[in-house]
Amino acid sequence: MKETAKTNAAENKAKKPVPTVPERLAKLREAMAAEGIDTWMIPTADYHNSEYVAPFFQSRVYFSGFTGSAGTLVVRQDEAGLWTDGRYFIQAEQELKGSGIDLYKMGEKGVPTIQAFLKDHMPVGSVLGFDGRCVTKKEGMDLAAALDKKAIAIRADLDLSEKAWEDRPMLPSHPVFLLDEEKYAGETTKSKLQRLRDTMKENDAELFISGKLDEIMWLYNIRGNDVECNPVALSYTIVTPKEAHLFIQGSEVTPELREFAKENGIYLQHYHAFSELLRHWKIEGTVMLDPEYTSYATYLDLCKNLDRDMEGDVSECILEKQSPVTGMKAVKNETEIRNFKEIYVEDSAVLTKFIYWLKTHVGKEEITEGSAAAKLDGMRAEIKDFVELSFPTISAYGPNGAIVHYEPEGDGAAVGVDGMLMVDSGGHYLRGTTDVTRTMSLGGKITDEMIKDYTLTLVSQLQVMGLEFLQGANGMALDIMARAPMWKNGMDYKHGTGHGIGYLLNVHEGPQNLRYKARSAADEAPFEPGMVISDEPGVYKEGKHGIRIETILLTVFKEETADGRFLAFEPLTYVPLDRELIDVKYMTQETRELMNWYLKTTYEKISPFMNEEELAWLKEQCAEI
Amino acid sequence: MKETAKTNAAENKAKKPVPTVPERLAKLREAMAAEGIDTWMIPTADYHNSEYVAPFFQSRVYFSGFTGSAGTLVVRQDEAGLWTDGRYFIQAEQELKGSGIDLYKMGEKGVPTIQAFLKDHMPVGSVLGFDGRCVTKKEGMDLAAALDKKAIAIRADLDLSEKAWEDRPMLPSHPVFLLDEEKYAGETTKSKLQRLRDTMKENDAELFISGKLDEIMWLYNIRGNDVECNPVALSYTIVTPKEAHLFIQGSEVTPELREFAKENGIYLQHYHAFSELLRHWKIEGTVMLDPEYTSYATYLDLCKNLDRDMEGDVSECILEKQSPVTGMKAVKNETEIRNFKEIYVEDSAVLTKFIYWLKTHVGKEEITEGSAAAKLDGMRAEIKDFVELSFPTISAYGPNGAIVHYEPEGDGAAVGVDGMLMVDSGGHYLRGTTDVTRTMSLGGKITDEMIKDYTLTLVSQLQVMGLEFLQGANGMALDIMARAPMWKNGMDYKHGTGHGIGYLLNVHEGPQNLRYKARSAADEAPFEPGMVISDEPGVYKEGKHGIRIETILLTVFKEETADGRFLAFEPLTYVPLDRELIDVKYMTQETRELMNWYLKTTYEKISPFMNEEELAWLKEQCAEI
Repeated sequence: MKETAKTNAAENKAKKPVPTVPERLAKLREAMAAEGIDTWMIPTADYHNSEYVAPFFQSRVYFSGFTGSAGTLVVRQDEAGLWTDGRYFIQAEQELKGSGIDLYKMGEKGVPTIQAFLKDHMPVGSVLGFDGRCVTKKEGMDLAAALDKKAIAIRADLDLSEKAWEDRPMLPSHPVFLLDEEKYAGETTKSKLQRLRDTMKENDAELFISGKLDEIMWLYNIRGNDVECNPVALSYTIVTPKEAHLFIQGSEVTPELREFAKENGIYLQHYHAFSELLRHWKIEGTVMLDPEYTSYATYLDLCKNLDRDMEGDVSECILEKQSPVTGMKAVKNETEIRNFKEIYVEDSAVLTKFIYWLKTHVGKEEITEGSAAAKLDGMRAEIKDFVELSFPTISAYGPNGAIVHYEPEGDGAAVGVDGMLMVDSGGHYLRGTTDVTRTMSLGGKITDEMIKDYTLTLVSQLQVMGLEFLQGANGMALDIMARAPMWKNGMDYKHGTGHGIGYLLNVHEGPQNLRYKARSAADEAPFEPGMVISDEPGVYKEGKHGIRIETILLTVFKEETADGRFLAFEPLTYVPLDRELIDVKYMTQETRELMNWYLKTTYEKISPFMNEEELAWLKEQCAEI
Repeated sequence: MKETAKTNAAENKAKKPVPTVPERLAKLREAMAAEGIDTWMIPTADYHNSEYVAPFFQSRVYFSGFTGSAGTLVVRQDEAGLWTDGRYFIQAEQELKGSGIDLYKMGEKGVPTIQAFLKDHMPVGSVLGFDGRCVTKKEGMDLAAALDKKAIAIRADLDLSEKAWEDRPMLPSHPVFLLDEEKYAGETTKSKLQRLRDTMKENDAELFISGKLDEIMWLYNIRGNDVECNPVALSYTIVTPKEAHLFIQGSEVTPELREFAKENGIYLQHYHAFSELLRHWKIEGTVMLDPEYTSYATYLDLCKNLDRDMEGDVSECILEKQSPVTGMKAVKNETEIRNFKEIYVEDSAVLTKFIYWLKTHVGKEEITEGSAAAKLDGMRAEIKDFVELSFPTISAYGPNGAIVHYEPEGDGAAVGVDGMLMVDSGGHYLRGTTDVTRTMSLGGKITDEMIKDYTLTLVSQLQVMGLEFLQGANGMALDIMARAPMWKNGMDYKHGTGHGIGYLLNVHEGPQNLRYKARSAADEAPFEPGMVISDEPGVYKEGKHGIRIETILLTVFKEETADGRFLAFEPLTYVPLDRELIDVKYMTQETRELMNWYLKTTYEKISPFMNEEELAWLKEQCAEI
């Protein structure tokens, strides 16, 4: 799956007459006035900087009426503004009509940033408020620093939605389940905690704090269901050299978890007690935390604690660095790799069957983007250990494929025989998380341009797959192997080439990526054997077509020579490519050979899952090119 | 030229009986005692962090007897240590014998860093001394912070060599010369100053300070002769919105410079007055400086100044960032590009003639690595506007080629017909600075391994040369194009693939580079049209052979499409490759085609410079492969 911004998964249809947006804002402004707050800011985030945001956290949607997946609402007594990015300018204009909220188009010339707006509009000595749990430490610190010169105070300890949002959905809460350590997790929680403590020791840290949900799930070998498409439970953790505390809602604790916690010496604490406990925790050494996944509120709690106990700058007591769990989690162990290999073959077989079904049914019955997606989702759900989709299936026909973040309305466009359908999809299984994209012709008209673009995308994808590289190289260095064939033709795709993938966890995880323009060098960890990466170049031509081919790769050890240790990639995904869309004249000898190896291997891996009819077709698809 | 560490160019032979190293150290220790200094540190550096260090600055060589190009000497009353890197372990052991100085092998397990050594050995409350002009701001600050806990003070305002070094060479001082603005520089100093001031304005800076010599030369369109192989004059500059001050030794000022300065409103100040003037400069706004090229002494001067005038943290008044001149200088203007193109063809023709001479004379007369280099140097010196070599010519025969930083003793090895000779060389001319490497067979035995390694190096070099890329990409992203063919074969070279090149300035300049392992992302500027970059992959096999092929490339605009602006590389160097060492079976179709285009163009460009005999040979060399 291509990395997208946070996706709004809320159902925004009201069940009974609800207040209008101006009525909602009036209620919010009442609450602001009662608290002496000049300006109230509502970002799109939960307490854990998760990729998807549950309905409970969609205050911005509620108070603005804007339903896009990304945006920040700023409310003052006499004005309100919504900031969103280029994907949503048209939608936001329509949805904000009559709300009295001004649209601020981010990135457009002359449009102020939120920070600049606040500095400009807020009176000296006034108060800015926001829920500090929904803002990262860095964002909060930046705001505080910027507004300090105008003596603007920040209140981050309030959630005005509590007072002003009628019929607010409940905080998500579902029982967690344990992941069998031998069969699925491949490493005991005891061993994981030990490794974490070893790293703490190396860093002279006495306390490790995390609110990053997928890391907490991984560490304790549990899974939850509180965030759409992410099998995680709302939680925090505090780990010391001797103790491990898991903060989780009481309603999520099962007898099995209680037993497991007891066996492993894990203290179960209430989710909502985290902040209070942190403020009073006896801190004697350095606290290690990941600033990207620590909320501003948590940071303030920590500051309060540290200020009370000692003099001087608290930053000396806090070690800010990427959580060591991020790297540990990214390197899959033997059990995880074995399960991944198995489930990717089964998942590949299902997608292949879907492609066969589509190709043999399109033009004969009514198929829409939505019904095609539903068909695939249903097929995937029949795999024995299916848990849920790993993200909402993207099904984009014709020119819709050119919209990188395509979200159809309703059932979407009707799928005809001409042009191409792009399908990006994946599932969560006990045996791992999948993600795969194929773009296919449908028996009708295809143009030479489509064939050239598809073949170039394939060459790009194969160039990464065939790469062998010195250990130490990261995705900033390797990304260009995919882009070079595109660039040679004056083309580029405006997204990364690849992302890491969790094991029955988030479909996007770091610290490895494939993108030459990284935010910082530190973000891009060197590849290690056991790391999984998506390889998904694409071509997007507005009004014409969109193509993406995504195959998931496993990093493996290749050889050790006098010049160092060399690694390589090995595909996990085995789904045939579309022969109608390939012209070998755009391929190099190397990529053609690799392609033939891939087709041959694909046939070997997935043919056992095909029926007779499918098998005959698959054989054709996998013949040498 | 491959980037190397600072090269020691001093002649260390004494003309009359000189004190032994222990006698020199005794004198230094006397001076230390007189000043109350517990530990004295001598790095290998001049006041400007230059790549080459003039004899005046070689205190470390004088007081230790160790003549390698890199090392730091630390002297205490009862002990002394020399830190150097792996290239020099054997040489240092030999040269330090009997000196009483301990060798600290940097990077070896259990060997303390200088900082750790100082923390461990120096008593609480004692004093560390060094010449603050020879240490960068960052190095000085790091030391001060590390030693602060032991209440160790730093004295950075002394140069004990003044007292303890008998017969110290003079500070280099040679008259500067003006670079014709129309014919060579291509942009007036007035225009350059205006562009610098525009950037200062954008950054709200009132004062720009620089001690980076090549930048100062570029800014004022002058050149000097104070640093070996770098046509620069010892200098500093201060630029304000209205004024420009050039600090330079009186003996370097010519009537022409005086006239030029007058015309351009440049204040000429004495070199040694810089520190004093800086301490008393009326500073009203922000000071912009490049921390990598600002000495610790300059920083202390500035702090003194700022502390006197205002309260609070001086870091608020100082904007530390890469000098804007770095980027301006790197993008060559039309005149510079025209001259570069001309001189590179002439320089290429000379190297080609040399190769012909070598191939027709080796085995028939006595040739050594040194005499071959001298022959080439002499031929190059005959080009009409030759100024000096851009670095000492590297000539390495057989297994010597595998030593990346090869410096022969005396005349070096005898060159025979078997194996290969690698020659890395270049010159400074009024029309620009050149740098080129070719590795050649000599008519005798060559192995299949040599052929494979040479062809792979060629493929690596061509893969960069043939690249087309989106504007915005930097050398961290592009480097892998050169390495991928090597990595595929379990090989790697342990140096960057390329560096920027000055115009009649340093042969190594930033901010663009080609290296996937950059120190920081900010170090590696995106390529822009007009930037020049070396493209020099290699193979180094200890005890066997070394191969490097270096061709200089110019960044050019290629096309603008819906997906952005695309750039490409165009060779400046046109020297044939060695056909004996190429096996096309290791080449891809693309690199083979590019190779043939390069050979054809090389013939067109340099054939006018050949005599009849050479021409016949060149024709063979440039035939299609």
